[in-house]
Amino acid sequence: MHTSWKEDSPVHKSRLAGFIIDCECTDLDAAAQFWSRALGYAVRAPAEQQYRTLDTPADEVHVEVQKVSHPSRVHLDIEADDIEAEVRRLERLGARRIEQVRTWWVMQAPTGQRFCVVRPQRTDFAARAHRWDE
Amino acid sequence: MHTSWKEDSPVHKSRLAGFIIDCECTDLDAAAQFWSRALGYAVRAPAEQQYRTLDTPADEVHVEVQKVSHPSRVHLDIEADDIEAEVRRLERLGARRIEQVRTWWVMQAPTGQRFCVVRPQRTDFAARAHRWDE
Repeated sequence: MHTSWKEDSPVHKSRLAGFIIDCECTDLDAAAQFWSRALGYAVRAPAEQQYRTLDTPADEVHVEVQKVSHPSRVHLDIEADDIEAEVRRLERLGARRIEQVRTWWVMQAPTGQRFCVVRPQRTDFAARAHRWDE
Repeated sequence: MHTSWKEDSPVHKSRLAGFIIDCECTDLDAAAQFWSRALGYAVRAPAEQQYRTLDTPADEVHVEVQKVSHPSRVHLDIEADDIEAEVRRLERLGARRIEQVRTWWVMQAPTGQRFCVVRPQRTDFAARAHRWDE
């Protein structure tokens, strides 16, 4: 009896969720204000101390401004309904785990960029995410 | 007779066009292949030597992989129908010009990230870009 089929062959979904504009700054609201006006999207009411979300259209990637203590950069988020399966899939492509933070994993691409694997963020995730049968 | 109204008060449009995954690498096709498989979008037939475009849906931001000689990073592009007017608008917000490359400008945000102001890239630019009357 083959009870571990799902663990051996996970079927899950993932997709590019959006981009985080990491700002090494003291004033996150001023940083968010710049990007809001530069990109033409309002800043949503703050939900978390170190993040400000820009009000992009529902069918677009999400864009957030984050206060960080490392040099400023931009990183991307991949959303997944099974984070462990997605991290393992990305490891097989050559990425490596850096650090687990709350519900997500920080990874590093073989091309050098850091990125995160996060829980589903966008409302059309179920309809439009990629399905991985590997 | 007021002939310079347009120059004094430019009306133009701009929008977030997409993100460029800058890879310090020797093999651009291998770099593009990683990001293609990670994000689930095919690589389009190469149009330029140092860029590979991922086949994102028409209503999404564009994502390109670029071969660069500086450390790997991710940067964003703002598309505009009047690049000079857009660069001036962004300067008023605190960004500064770094370098003009072919048809676009490389700028630096007050929060430290480099980004580019480029000609319209997405097919729905006219319908969905922000209009700036300032």
